[in-house]
Amino acid sequence: MGLEMTAEEVMDFIDEVFPQVSGEFTIEALEEMRITVRLNVGERHLRPGGTVSGPSIFALADVSVYMAILAMIGPRGLAVTTSSSIDFMRKPAARTDLIAECRLLKLGRVLAVGDVLIRSDGTDAPVARASLTYSIPPQGSG
Amino acid sequence: MGLEMTAEEVMDFIDEVFPQVSGEFTIEALEEMRITVRLNVGERHLRPGGTVSGPSIFALADVSVYMAILAMIGPRGLAVTTSSSIDFMRKPAARTDLIAECRLLKLGRVLAVGDVLIRSDGTDAPVARASLTYSIPPQGSG
Amino acid sequence: MGLEMTAEEVMDFIDEVFPQVSGEFTIEALEEMRITVRLNVGERHLRPGGTVSGPSIFALADVSVYMAILAMIGPRGLAVTTSSSIDFMRKPAARTDLIAECRLLKLGRVLAVGDVLIRSDGTDAPVARASLTYSIPPQGSG
Amino acid sequence: MGLEMTAEEVMDFIDEVFPQVSGEFTIEALEEMRITVRLNVGERHLRPGGTVSGPSIFALADVSVYMAILAMIGPRGLAVTTSSSIDFMRKPAARTDLIAECRLLKLGRVLAVGDVLIRSDGTDAPVARASLTYSIPPQGSG
Repeated sequence: MGLEMTAEEVMDFIDEVFPQVSGEFTIEALEEMRITVRLNVGERHLRPGGTVSGPSIFALADVSVYMAILAMIGPRGLAVTTSSSIDFMRKPAARTDLIAECRLLKLGRVLAVGDVLIRSDGTDAPVARASLTYSIPPQGSG
Repeated sequence: MGLEMTAEEVMDFIDEVFPQVSGEFTIEALEEMRITVRLNVGERHLRPGGTVSGPSIFALADVSVYMAILAMIGPRGLAVTTSSSIDFMRKPAARTDLIAECRLLKLGRVLAVGDVLIRSDGTDAPVARASLTYSIPPQGSG
Repeated sequence: MGLEMTAEEVMDFIDEVFPQVSGEFTIEALEEMRITVRLNVGERHLRPGGTVSGPSIFALADVSVYMAILAMIGPRGLAVTTSSSIDFMRKPAARTDLIAECRLLKLGRVLAVGDVLIRSDGTDAPVARASLTYSIPPQGSG
Repeated sequence: MGLEMTAEEVMDFIDEVFPQVSGEFTIEALEEMRITVRLNVGERHLRPGGTVSGPSIFALADVSVYMAILAMIGPRGLAVTTSSSIDFMRKPAARTDLIAECRLLKLGRVLAVGDVLIRSDGTDAPVARASLTYSIPPQGSG
């Protein structure tokens, strides 16, 4: 299985289909079954003290897996998240972008599973770990 | 253990400490170890088709458990989410508020665990199920 | 949707298909989308101090959801667990049976989700909370 | 932070404290914050068709994180699992040992988080992915 879409094509698709998140996320690297995504942190992501909010961290994990799947299967139909688990391990650095490193552990006919490690840009210790399961739409849909 | 705060006091505390979410959530009911919270759905919560986004559903589950803990222990320090699991089971009704029913299953000295069932307002079938663990700050802090 | 199997039929099917767990579990109550299952605690489930082990608690949660699905869809094919989250909240009572109360929150064409609350027999405070997702085999299989 | 115990010392401690699992698990490799553990598959781990059972996979993930923590903090008190999420992604190879590769993502004063990837011995594709949170006993206890 190779990539069906380039990083630019994935970004264009996201911009078109999810205009609400346009500009929030940038693909830093993309290869087969792996993607690195940046959350461009702005005021709306922050909690008091400049900490990135839990829902913003969740959104980054979620979109990373979505983009990784999209790049592998192409823009057919819309995969939907069916379950997720996330561990919040450290306070993110204040007012700093987050970097998500995502790996697809499974890309089946019906379900895909992605694993995500999230760090504050410029630091090593992980802020959060997440895994997400997506339901894949049948081929031909969308 | 009885309630340390009324629903109004919890809402005031949230407005003060998390002004970013002001107006997003309303407490519908509060009793010992239980809370019902409404997500007042607006454009920023929506995905194409009028569906409430996954991160918005996560945010609702997260804030519900936070509010339930706050009401029980009072406004000392800030509890933080340490882990969460969520199952997305049905598409939410379009452009419809979500209702979270949350129960604290454990309120320990160090950790609290809350269970949340989320429905679209006016419907019975659950949209999502979540459980969240919070780390409780030591007494005297905050 | 009504029940496709009685508690006795579910137990007979489990005994036949999973002889390894024969005698470990007893159905206490069964209705549409709900089941109550007892773990008949024996030496092999225990850790030092007489505490029921984590894997035994996981097994109880897992089998409860499996039985609830089986009772609803009948003995066709074999549903398999695709994901699970579990919170261990209190130490089980020493050398005491565990009781799992399970509710199916979703029983779809492809996926089923069950929620489980586990107590030590004779006590109220939950020992653990679990949710499990099963993949349902296509009709006609098995 | 360096290792407080060797692989042999960890195995001896497990044999002494959890005689029930003696012989089930072998440490294949141990370094700071990382461990590789083998499940020596026997009849009691199997389901029909020779597949390793879900609870056995859970037990392997759980013990791997436990051993990794033990090796780092030494044999003081007993860390306990507080929560776990696990994704079952592929059927294990029949009657084949499982290999768990575990990494501690966090080793805090109160909580530790470990990430585990499980494969059938001799294969690459992951059978399961798990993450577990342990509560660390206060220093001086145990």
